[in-house]
Amino acid sequence: MNPINISEKFKLFDAHWTPKKIGELNGQQILLAKLKGAFIWHSHADEDELFMIIKGSLKIELRDKTVTVNQGEIFIIPKGIEHRPIAEEEVHVLLFEPLSTKHTGAIINELTVETYESI
Amino acid sequence: MNPINISEKFKLFDAHWTPKKIGELNGQQILLAKLKGAFIWHSHADEDELFMIIKGSLKIELRDKTVTVNQGEIFIIPKGIEHRPIAEEEVHVLLFEPLSTKHTGAIINELTVETYESI
Repeated sequence: MNPINISEKFKLFDAHWTPKKIGELNGQQILLAKLKGAFIWHSHADEDELFMIIKGSLKIELRDKTVTVNQGEIFIIPKGIEHRPIAEEEVHVLLFEPLSTKHTGAIINELTVETYESI
Repeated sequence: MNPINISEKFKLFDAHWTPKKIGELNGQQILLAKLKGAFIWHSHADEDELFMIIKGSLKIELRDKTVTVNQGEIFIIPKGIEHRPIAEEEVHVLLFEPLSTKHTGAIINELTVETYESI
């Protein structure tokens, strides 16, 4: 039961698209990730997913529009909605989602992280 | 499905200890609150509660220690743990907790907010 400093946690890793777990509550997990480049199209059938932008500006492509989420903003992707995050410059993001959420949804490829490291 | 700007949302209200709802996902709610002064001792029997400090510095008294949570830090209070937040100067906080969480736990007093306004 100690405070978790978000900036300090971001100093502990460099890899892109590799979320690290910093906390859990009520069956949900808090992840930090560094993003750069384009991810893959995917969706999470049963889980809503929250992106909070800590640094930078993230484009999120949806099938019907593209949203830009800036530093200090939150974006919630409802379950079942296909999305593709694109970070033209490096973005630092906090994710909030159920423990059951799979990294790339139903798709498994070389980007997929099966188990998130706790930091 | 639009980005939620945390700073802009904080401009929409002034009252202390009166959380406003800015989003919901997976049976959880995201609240913003402005805090000043001391709250009451309370706990949430079934819900863990997350505090993220957006501005300022919040003391959280627990029965066995007092924790200071600074801007950019997260603190998770596990269910059942009695706590009392104290903001010596105004603090802006983001809360993440289940929809079922009651403002002042099992205690009802003049500070209690029964239903959170959405902003």
